[in-house]
Formats: sequence, structure tokens, C-alpha cells
Amino acid sequence: MSGAPSIGAAAAPIGVFDSGLGGLTVVRALRGAVPDESLLYLGDTARVPYGTRSAETVVRYARSCSRELVARGVKALVIACNTVSAVAVEVLAAELDLPVLGVIEPGAEAAVAAAEAVGAAAGALPKIGVLGTQGTVLSGAYPRAVARLSSRLEVVAQAAPLLVPLVEEGWVEGEVPERVVERYVDPLVAEGAGVLVLGCTHYPLLAPVIARVAERLAGRPIPVVDGAAATARRVAEWIRTERLEPAPAGAAGTLELLVTDLPASFARLAESFLGRGEAPVAQIDLR
Amino acid sequence: MSGAPSIGAAAAPIGVFDSGLGGLTVVRALRGAVPDESLLYLGDTARVPYGTRSAETVVRYARSCSRELVARGVKALVIACNTVSAVAVEVLAAELDLPVLGVIEPGAEAAVAAAEAVGAAAGALPKIGVLGTQGTVLSGAYPRAVARLSSRLEVVAQAAPLLVPLVEEGWVEGEVPERVVERYVDPLVAEGAGVLVLGCTHYPLLAPVIARVAERLAGRPIPVVDGAAATARRVAEWIRTERLEPAPAGAAGTLELLVTDLPASFARLAESFLGRGEAPVAQIDLR
Repeated sequence: MSGAPSIGAAAAPIGVFDSGLGGLTVVRALRGAVPDESLLYLGDTARVPYGTRSAETVVRYARSCSRELVARGVKALVIACNTVSAVAVEVLAAELDLPVLGVIEPGAEAAVAAAEAVGAAAGALPKIGVLGTQGTVLSGAYPRAVARLSSRLEVVAQAAPLLVPLVEEGWVEGEVPERVVERYVDPLVAEGAGVLVLGCTHYPLLAPVIARVAERLAGRPIPVVDGAAATARRVAEWIRTERLEPAPAGAAGTLELLVTDLPASFARLAESFLGRGEAPVAQIDLR
Repeated sequence: MSGAPSIGAAAAPIGVFDSGLGGLTVVRALRGAVPDESLLYLGDTARVPYGTRSAETVVRYARSCSRELVARGVKALVIACNTVSAVAVEVLAAELDLPVLGVIEPGAEAAVAAAEAVGAAAGALPKIGVLGTQGTVLSGAYPRAVARLSSRLEVVAQAAPLLVPLVEEGWVEGEVPERVVERYVDPLVAEGAGVLVLGCTHYPLLAPVIARVAERLAGRPIPVVDGAAATARRVAEWIRTERLEPAPAGAAGTLELLVTDLPASFARLAESFLGRGEAPVAQIDLR
């Protein structure tokens, strides 16, 4: 969450990018929070997943994605990918002349709020458990973001590299996802996590399984926080506070989807993500 | 398995490439079969996995990998990746002026031999079951390769997109790999597969689990065929038949590893793959 003050035409779309499909959970939230705004989404499906790659490679890929969206005239950039947000928000905000928002700061804020609510009810603050990709966990971005908000909350984190492939394959219910999720959630609950943060925009598709497994392991319901909604609220706030120019009055927000691999299977999965009629999907090359 | 006759200096290395780690199973087999030959391996770890991508994107990535190895002076190219072999062997062989070998034809040959051996013992030919990536299965490359060798053998294939992430994470034993493998092997056994082919160079690391699960499901041992050894034997045959110039007499084959993402975790995993002391690992950029 940083970047220069608002520039660009009001009617320009907000650019949203992710390594693949996951960022569509942020698109869904944005369409709810700022329905007038047009959105231009880029999924780097030819290079997904980012979460197992080094920070250097993720920064390189993030630069090429954001260059593409800027060249297409977006008025702001939402990084709908935790891995990129963890290692590249500052770099992109410094290099680009438009507002740049990542998902980690809003997600951490929502997690802190949930932990404080649980603590108020239970009489003791729970730890915040983060599920994320290898890249996100190694970056330490969530513990840093939480520490900026509260000195009393402890964060435990678990890398969960198989969850993105499960979601990208559409395998989000049944015994295998359940067992894989258990393997990752178990150490978090064992370490005392009383709130779970979905530290990857793919994971909301697994939220029902994650919530069920966490409740079974902990013996009580565990709130599951998804940063997508918090990120969308932050964009709405930017518009309210004039950090970002709103779409012209009466505008109907459009949605356009770009991908770097062939769009057929993406379009199919995108519909299940967005829970609505189709948006056009086009394939592009990134340099 | 095609390409122009041998060119290039005898002492030049044989180039081997894969999307990531998996091709090291072919490297291991080559070091056994042609120990005098130097090997230059390229793992495109910044873009792994290939198996879920479209044929168009795989061809594009395969071109950039092979261009790199050719520029470094290799005398032949072994495509140690089933997904690339399935969609790009002919293209690369036509474009490049050196011998090009994929893993599918040797693997299919080994599978046919195993199926005929099972058939001779059982009195009826079994079907050949192929486990592979989405890209390999969609390409139909194994059924085509088997049909060229025998008109009596039927092939059934199953895409298994989670196996590569499991191997790349090093999670190759225990209940989760067992359940994931079961989900993919079960339909093959139900359709009558009596021989399994590991149609991806990552899968040999899961071979013990795959063999155990297949035996449990079928109620009898099922041979598990790995194309890596057959591919290495084919290279040895090329040298014997002078299709490929051998390394100078008395040469000690060297091994050099190139990757496109940071080499640290690759180097660690490479040691477990190769079962030997380390080879130097360097990071390069592909254009």
C-alpha cells in the first residue's frame, strides 16, 4: 500500500494481476466493493505458480506483468498475489507512477481484527496462523505487517506448496484436499493459532475444507480470514479519500481478463471463481 | 528420436533439458550407460511445471531451452521431459542441426516389452497404463508411440497433475502421496492396465509408492516402467552405431547443471536425485 498520488483518466481501469487464477478472488471482491470501476486482470498462467520461486525471479515476473498493465493505461495497480505482495510491492511502488496496493497489509489488518475479537471473547489473545506459499512464508511479510499493527500478537506461518496446484486443478473437496490441508494446518493449530489467514489468493477456494479441518483439529471453530475482501475495501477507501480518482458517475464497470497461456481452461475455471457470466479472455505475450 | 547425423566436436557435452528437476533421473541413467560422456543439464526451474501448460507455450519454452544449449556447443540434445517430448521433438529435430532424442519413444518401447512379458506369463496381453502430465496425456503421444510398435496393445492414460508438485516439494512417502497416487492409479487399474509407464521424468521418485498402490489395487504386482533407463540405452546405441560421435578415449565425463531460478534448493534436491556428490549448479537467464 504505497505509490504516487492518483494520476490518469478517471475512466481507466484498475489493473489487477496474479500468477494465475487466484487473483480472481480479489476481482470478485472488487466487483462487490467498487462496482462502477472497470477492471483489467492479468493472470501470468504461462509461468504460474510464483510461490515456489525465488524472490529475484518473482520480482522479475512482477515487473513484466505491471509493465504490461501500465502500458495498457491502468490508473492503479492491485497486486492480487501474496507472493508478489510479499517481495515486490515496495519495488513496484517506487518504480511506477501510480498507486500500488498489495494484499498482505489489508489481510494482516483483517487478521489482527479477527484475533482481537477472538481474544476479547476468550480472555486471551490467540496466535495468528498464516498459510502461504514458500515465497510468502520465507519473506516474513505477514509477521512484519502484523507487528506494525500490534505488538501483542504472535504470528506462526506454514508454507503449503500443494494448495495452489490443488486449486488450479479444481480439486477442492474430498479426502485428498482434506488430508493435504490437515498436514499444513495441524502444525499451526499445535502452535496455538486461534485465527487462520489465507495468505494466498488461491486458498479461498479451499476455505470450507480449511475451516472444517481447523475446527476438527482445534476442537472449536477457528476464524478463517481472507485478504481479498479487505483489499477491496481498501480500494473503496482510496476512492472515498480521493487517493484514487473514481470512475465517472453512472459508469458501469467492465471486466477484461488477460492471460499468458491459452485461455480455454482459464475461462472455464474463471467462471467458477467469479460465480457470474463470462468476461472476455485474451492471450498475450509478456516481454 | 530423429534429427540430422552427428556433428560437432567429440568432446562436446550432450545437452539434457527438462522443466525442472525431473530430468535428473535421465542424467542418472546416462551416467550409468555412457559414463565417458560429458553432460550439460538445463532445468527451467523459473517456469516449471510445463505439464499443465498448452502445447504452444511448451514449444515456445522448449525452443528457448534448446537454443541455449546449442549456443553452448552441445553435440546432441536429450529432451528429458515427457511433456516436451510429446509436443516438441519433431519441431526441435527439424529446426536444429544435431541429433535430438525424446523420452517417449524409448519409454513406449520398454512398456511394450514389459507388457509382452506379462502377457507371455499370463496368457493374455495386459493394457498399458500411462501416468503423465495433462500436456503429455492430451497429446496422445504414448498411444501413438505404442501403436507404431504393436497393433495388439491397448493404452489407457491418466493425467496426474499433482505428482510433479509432490516430487518438487520432496513429499514422496507417507499417506498423502499414497492417496494422491491412488486417485490416479485406480482408474488405470480399473480399466485393465497390467503395466504402468511413468510418463513424466519426475515420477521415478514416486515409483515405490506407485508400485505399492498398484499392487494393492490390482491384487498382484504390476510392473512399473521408467523411460529414463531406456532413453539412456538409446543414447549408448547411438554412440555404438556412430549416429553420435563418442567422447575421446579415456575421457572422464563431467556434469554441469544450469537452472533458470536460484540454484540453492535445486542443488540440495539434485543431490538426492543423483545419489552422488555435487555437480556445479549455475543460474542463467533465457531469452
